Order: sequence, then structure tokens, then C-alpha cells
Amino acid sequence: MTLIPGHSLPAANRRLLLTGRPAGIPTAENFTLDESPLSALDPGSFRVRALYLSADPAQRGWASDVPNYMPPVAIGAVMRALGTGIVVDSKDPAHPVGSCVYGWLGWQDYAVLTAADVITRFATPGVPLEYYAGLLGISGLTARISLTRLGQLRERDTVLVSAAAGAVGSLVGQLARLAGARTIGLAGSEAKVRTLIERYGYATGINYRSHDLVGEIAAAAPEGLDLYFDNVGGPILDASLRHMRVGGRVIQCGTASIASWSPVPTGPRNEREILTRRLSWNGFVLFDHANSYMEAFQRLERAAIAGELSFENHILDGIEQAPEALAMLYRGANRGKMLIWTG
Amino acid sequence: MTLIPGHSLPAANRRLLLTGRPAGIPTAENFTLDESPLSALDPGSFRVRALYLSADPAQRGWASDVPNYMPPVAIGAVMRALGTGIVVDSKDPAHPVGSCVYGWLGWQDYAVLTAADVITRFATPGVPLEYYAGLLGISGLTARISLTRLGQLRERDTVLVSAAAGAVGSLVGQLARLAGARTIGLAGSEAKVRTLIERYGYATGINYRSHDLVGEIAAAAPEGLDLYFDNVGGPILDASLRHMRVGGRVIQCGTASIASWSPVPTGPRNEREILTRRLSWNGFVLFDHANSYMEAFQRLERAAIAGELSFENHILDGIEQAPEALAMLYRGANRGKMLIWTG
Repeated sequence: MTLIPGHSLPAANRRLLLTGRPAGIPTAENFTLDESPLSALDPGSFRVRALYLSADPAQRGWASDVPNYMPPVAIGAVMRALGTGIVVDSKDPAHPVGSCVYGWLGWQDYAVLTAADVITRFATPGVPLEYYAGLLGISGLTARISLTRLGQLRERDTVLVSAAAGAVGSLVGQLARLAGARTIGLAGSEAKVRTLIERYGYATGINYRSHDLVGEIAAAAPEGLDLYFDNVGGPILDASLRHMRVGGRVIQCGTASIASWSPVPTGPRNEREILTRRLSWNGFVLFDHANSYMEAFQRLERAAIAGELSFENHILDGIEQAPEALAMLYRGANRGKMLIWTG
Repeated sequence: MTLIPGHSLPAANRRLLLTGRPAGIPTAENFTLDESPLSALDPGSFRVRALYLSADPAQRGWASDVPNYMPPVAIGAVMRALGTGIVVDSKDPAHPVGSCVYGWLGWQDYAVLTAADVITRFATPGVPLEYYAGLLGISGLTARISLTRLGQLRERDTVLVSAAAGAVGSLVGQLARLAGARTIGLAGSEAKVRTLIERYGYATGINYRSHDLVGEIAAAAPEGLDLYFDNVGGPILDASLRHMRVGGRVIQCGTASIASWSPVPTGPRNEREILTRRLSWNGFVLFDHANSYMEAFQRLERAAIAGELSFENHILDGIEQAPEALAMLYRGANRGKMLIWTG
């Protein structure tokens, strides 16, 4: 067994198993921390010591048993999660001991992966490792690739972003601004609204808890919206759709405001808005776009090194904090991308 | 005054004025037939004797005062309508007496137009004039241009069409089939379902009044839908969205099943379907695509002359029948495109 110098493997691996289906938002009760022996490596596989795992909005869908864009996580299996780590043991020459990877580690201290589980590999001197789980992870890739593929951005477009202070939203706002657009951000507190403007360069910030959301959107975008980037769904989506310009684009990247899809909640019918405003409303799931990862990753890494993008990680310490990290995300208690340090 | 040989102008023009705002579907009470003197022609204008006027689903939107893709028809004005006619008097050398036009005639016997009101001009020997108000009018242009611009059709795609026996739907089904797709049509009676298959070449027809619409769509398209062409909105749309394949396209061309948009009716939230199925849902309004009219018109005219497209006009006699023609359309009592003969 080849090990990274100075690293000795423990006898057991701590894992967070999904042991109950959430009714809506997952809670700590849906997960169980266990310890299991480290498994042997098959040829072509390698063992990764997790360093930063992430808590992502998409985990709600993965934990549910409602059909999704990925199969549900099985009851009793390690919770699906992304993270960065270092290879400590390898039977894959392409992933030697000491190399750093970002990919499908799951919520566990040690993950046995194959090449298919890896999203990016990296080793750029001077870039903090935590960047690769945040700005340069799925948050950044989602923002960059969705805008490029679906946004049809033109200079001076007016762009509205929901969950605009969040991991994806804050990057969408910055990338759209760098492309010459005027950006308007929605967030859930006055403090976050200030952050939108001062930190992420939004032209205007709106507290979506405002009693007159429709009026505030109209005041911020008197000529209507060219692009609405939606992370939340629900009434905020409905209000925004009714303020789109003719030919506007809507990117559906998340539905975080909807607590449960069972039963399916109701809302105002939107087909007339789509028709009369000739909208183009597109769903975006990052994992369809693997062939765009490298271009986007390199572009984001350059921007990060040049200091063009502001991004905040909110890091909790210890794998046992992972369910709480997810819960904080859903109650809006996070300041930036939720990561769990497991090193 | 230059007149078409043998034609003498009457003293008065019969017009159907919009004299009341419909609450939902327009009815005969919303219109008033009047007679007014023929107006003089300004330079650049020409007078058209209407021969076939049409009743179109879009007229509901034009008659309402809810913002739409066109300004509302003013109370007291001639009802906006399309039609074909012959120029009987002209001060525009580009539209000489005797030429045939299709365009914005309004519901009246004589219309004074300028070039901007004309959608197509035509003079193909052997093609019946009524074709130009139906198959070669907005119905055909809508079917052809929407499929070309938004359909992204590939051979062997599975395509579902609502109002599939209607003027637009029957052509969408035929054009998709001619492009190599497998077509499934929705209609509102067993007789219409037979027409779908026997006349319009649909592989399968479904009566949307079925008690298990979702199950019937699933049985007809076990691998899901690549394209849903929607003319109706409402619960039929909701059912269809939930049977789309990943990456499927939805074209929103009408919302005929919704009786009133004031107040906005509710339905199940669809944002999760858009996201997880990565749908592309696009609104289509023909009048955005004037630069595609000529190509589409020529393509359709060739197909019509070659007998490749089946299309039925349902013709009522006399301008006073126009409100009834519109009402028949909305209660599904029409067999084919509703036209009014005014010659």
C-alpha cells in the first residue's frame, strides 16, 4: 500500500448515512454517523482523504425518493456529496498519491473513487484548497456554464438573480456584471442586500420579504428584465416572470423556496406569460455539461487569481456538522458557500 | 377612381365593431354590426374587398384589455382580424387593382390598408383563394415557423400536439411527421381522434376528456416526449410537462383551454419539472417572425400544390356570422379553420 508521506490510515471510516427519507428539507434525524472498516482498493480505484465537503441545495433532491435528474440515494448508503480531497492510496496511475481532486466524495472521511467520480483535478500553487470546493466547484461551474449556454447575455442587459447572495447567485451576479449587464439581486435580509451591492457589485438589491416585491422589481427595472436567473421558484419566480421583457430568458437553476413537492404546490398559471412575452424558460443541471467543465474551470481560476471575483466560504468543522450545514443553507443562516472541514 | 372591372363600390361598408370588453371568451354581445360610408384613399393606401375573413383564437387576446403582444382593440373600433381579399381601388403602385392580399383586413367588407398591413401577396394559378386564408395563412405560417425556429426536430422524435385537429395543430402534426417524427395528437372527441389518425397521419390519437389522460400519454409515449406543442395550456399542459424526456422542448402557441385570465387561475407549480427535466419552454407569436414568412409561405404552397398537406376550412357565410364563428372555435364546434365568406 502506497501512502502519502506522513499519513497513516485509520482503522475505520466515519460516514454519514442516509437512514430516513426527508419530508421536504432534510434534517439531522435523516442521517446516521457510523464507522466502518476501510475497504480494499480494486484496480482503477483510489482512496481520497476528504478535506472540504460541501452542503448543497441539490442534496435535498438526491435524498428524496421523488424521481430527479439522478437516482435517489439509497437508504443506508453514504449521503451523496461533493468535496475536495487528496489521494492517499491509489491503484489508478492517472490519480497518483498526493494529487488533489474535486468530485463525488460523499459525506465521509475517506472515499474510494474511480475516474468517473472526479469533476476536476488541480494543483495551482497559491490557490487555497477551499477555493476548489466553492468558487471553483459546482457553484462557479454552474454560474459560468449556465450563463454561457443559456443566458444569451448582451451588454446593458438587465439581469435579476434570486438567492443573489448565495454561492451560485453571487457568482452569477458578478459574471453578468463583468459581461456588461446591469444586475439586480434578491436576498432575504437588509444585511444581505447591503452585501449584494457592496461585495458583489449589484446595481440594486431588493429584500424579497418586502411587502411590495412586484413594485420594487418594477422600480429597479422600469423597462423589464432581459434575464431572470432563478434559484428559488415560488412566488418570487411568479413576480419576476410578470416583469420580463419580450424575448426574455429565464434560467431555472433551483427551487429552494419550495419546502416540499409532495403534494405539488400550486401557484398562478404562467403559460400566458410565456406566450405573450415570448419567454425562453430553460432548466439547468450542471452535470449535463461535463464537456464544458474545463473551459469554465480555467476561466474561473484565472478570474479568482486575478481577484476579479468575490466569494465567501462558510466553513463548519467536522463531518458530524454536515446535516447542520445543510439545515443552515435552507434556513438562510449561511454566509456564503457551506463547507465542512474534515481534515 | 380605378376600379376592378365589373366591380362597383357600395355606398356603405359593413363593419363589426368591438363595442364591449369580453369577460373571457368573446360573445356576439361584444360586437355591433354597423354601416359607415367608404372613406377616401390617401396616397400609399389601397382598398381591399374582403373575400375570406378568419376567426382566430388570438382574437380573444386582442379583444381584451389585458396587456398582450399587441395593443388592445379600442372600444368602438373595427374588430382586428385577418383575411384575404382583392384590391379594388389603389393609390399604391405596389398593390394595384386586381392583386390579391392576405393581411390585417379586420372584420369588415372593405378595408383600407397600407403595405404594412399585408402579410402575403399571391397569385398562383390553380390554388383556391380560400387556401390563402387558411393553410397558407397564419395557421400554416405558425406551424412551419414555430417548428423550424423552436422545435429542434430530429428524426424519430416523439411529438405531442394539443388541439391537434385544429388549424395550427393539424399542420404541426403533418409537418412533424413529414420531418420523420412520431406524432401523438390530443383532441376532444372520439370523432376528432379518428380524424387525427385517418386524415392527419398521427400515429396515435388521445381523447383529452379521458379519465386517465396521464396514463394514456404514458402509454402512447413510453419513453417520454421530445416535443410538446401546446395550443391549450391548463391541465393538459400540466400532464404533458410531466411526461417530457430530459432536454425536451415545449412550444407555447396558445392557451385556448383557459376561459379567463382575470383573476389568474392557479395550477400545479411547474418549475421543478423544468429544472429536473431540463426543459426548454418557449413562447411563440408568429408576428415576431416576419422575415421568415416568405420562406415558410413558399414551402407550404409547394406542399399544398403537391397534395402533401391535408387542411380543412369551415366556412360560414356572411360577415354577420363572424362572432358565431369565433364562439364555435372556443366551444370546439368547428371542423377545421373557421373562415367567413364575405364576397
